[in-house]
Amino acid sequence: MLVYLNGRFVPEAAATVSVFDRSFLYGDGLFEAMRVYGGKPFRWADHLERLRRGAAFLKIQLPFSENDLLVAARQLIKENALPESLLRITLSRGVGRRGYSPAGADHPSLVITLHPAPDADGQPRLAGRVVTASFRLPANETLAQFKTCNKLPQVMARAEADAAGADEALLLNTNGDIVEGSSSNLFWIAGGAVCTPPLTSGILAGVTRIVVLELCGKLGLPCREASITPAELMRAQGAFLSLSSWGILEITSIDGGVMPGSAITARLNAAYGDMIKGGQ
Amino acid sequence: MLVYLNGRFVPEAAATVSVFDRSFLYGDGLFEAMRVYGGKPFRWADHLERLRRGAAFLKIQLPFSENDLLVAARQLIKENALPESLLRITLSRGVGRRGYSPAGADHPSLVITLHPAPDADGQPRLAGRVVTASFRLPANETLAQFKTCNKLPQVMARAEADAAGADEALLLNTNGDIVEGSSSNLFWIAGGAVCTPPLTSGILAGVTRIVVLELCGKLGLPCREASITPAELMRAQGAFLSLSSWGILEITSIDGGVMPGSAITARLNAAYGDMIKGGQ
Repeated sequence: MLVYLNGRFVPEAAATVSVFDRSFLYGDGLFEAMRVYGGKPFRWADHLERLRRGAAFLKIQLPFSENDLLVAARQLIKENALPESLLRITLSRGVGRRGYSPAGADHPSLVITLHPAPDADGQPRLAGRVVTASFRLPANETLAQFKTCNKLPQVMARAEADAAGADEALLLNTNGDIVEGSSSNLFWIAGGAVCTPPLTSGILAGVTRIVVLELCGKLGLPCREASITPAELMRAQGAFLSLSSWGILEITSIDGGVMPGSAITARLNAAYGDMIKGGQ
Repeated sequence: MLVYLNGRFVPEAAATVSVFDRSFLYGDGLFEAMRVYGGKPFRWADHLERLRRGAAFLKIQLPFSENDLLVAARQLIKENALPESLLRITLSRGVGRRGYSPAGADHPSLVITLHPAPDADGQPRLAGRVVTASFRLPANETLAQFKTCNKLPQVMARAEADAAGADEALLLNTNGDIVEGSSSNLFWIAGGAVCTPPLTSGILAGVTRIVVLELCGKLGLPCREASITPAELMRAQGAFLSLSSWGILEITSIDGGVMPGSAITARLNAAYGDMIKGGQ
């Protein structure tokens, strides 16, 4: 497998960064992970928009133009012959002086890697069991909206899901609301409306979350942003997760408690499938 | 400069890790930074104890014995001829499968690097100006006690200090209490007692914090754990920071407001200096 590393295509065994790279030292970086369908990165523009906004927030200069990156991504997909895959872009602040201050670290690293699609085994997943994780996310934290390389709460939450034999873990924020999955945004159906926590609850600004809200508009489904406690979520008329790697995943159980299936989730899932086929 | 990398001593230019290393991808790792005085890592046992406890919490297997690491650290100090320095140990979970799940990532990476001492310019620092950062830490988060490689809030806070021409940034937790500096623990003097936030406030379990509490015991200074708001801190009879790289740093101003000097801070600083000379 070839890897794109700062302008060059290198074999994965040779794709390395310095032990002084700030993403290795502090998680001082950003990333994007997107599906590639039929050789085309799905929702490329939305992912790049989030990367650009995150880089501006962290004050990291993107070392390549977006067009350069798209050309590189397409070449990487072609060279690796992986038209159905998952593509990750990592932007690290690079090497700087010792210590937390980012001053003087002005040579960022940019890496693009390709991975087999999650359904490469021919088993598309449409539903999953979730558990509530013991790790909490800070509410009202702007940093959380960006896909930073600080993901230990998510890693630990996911390990709790693994230990429970579940597919995903839901995280609470410091207000005690359930806000997102370790690698997914949360939606639920209440009073016939599609609901999801607001960005200010401390969640990632998920690209597939935007797509779901767009699809609600197209399908004429009422939707709104709201907060929800774990007990309230159990009483919802249905719930699902949105994530780039799988799209829409219906939640079948939470901490062992069964969640009802929803015709609304099925409609959204079908519309999402149509959108992928349409290549948007 | 030589670097210790997974059992070998390599020139720093050759000290690299895979772009698939989980500390590069997610900050999925831990580190320790300690001062080396006269060729000896100061408070080695305390740093290793925190590293061991953090590794147990993250379920990362330490790939070398503590004695192996001490032998490696001593050799690194000798080979680099840096008896007065700062030593960093980084333990990453290493390369695993794609995604947050740590399952299958069972080959951790261990790196030891040496850096010039912060006072290598012959200018020891005893005091500093601080500003309050806009980034908040989650209260009651056990993960925060360990020195993980998730340090973006600290990096961003430190950038705010840099922009304000200050030496350090103080961070609030989600309860609105001031809890620590970006790379230091916080102490203040109130009613003649030395006060510091409890570990449950979301702070790092600092090694120098422990040393300060020990010194209070030896000097017969009353000390207690307490929470404090920014407004209350401004009314304290003095305040200081504790950190391995500098020891004890008196806070001379907070957001431009002058803080009084304290004889208690001066006594603790002198005792800290004696302890270093004693080689403990």
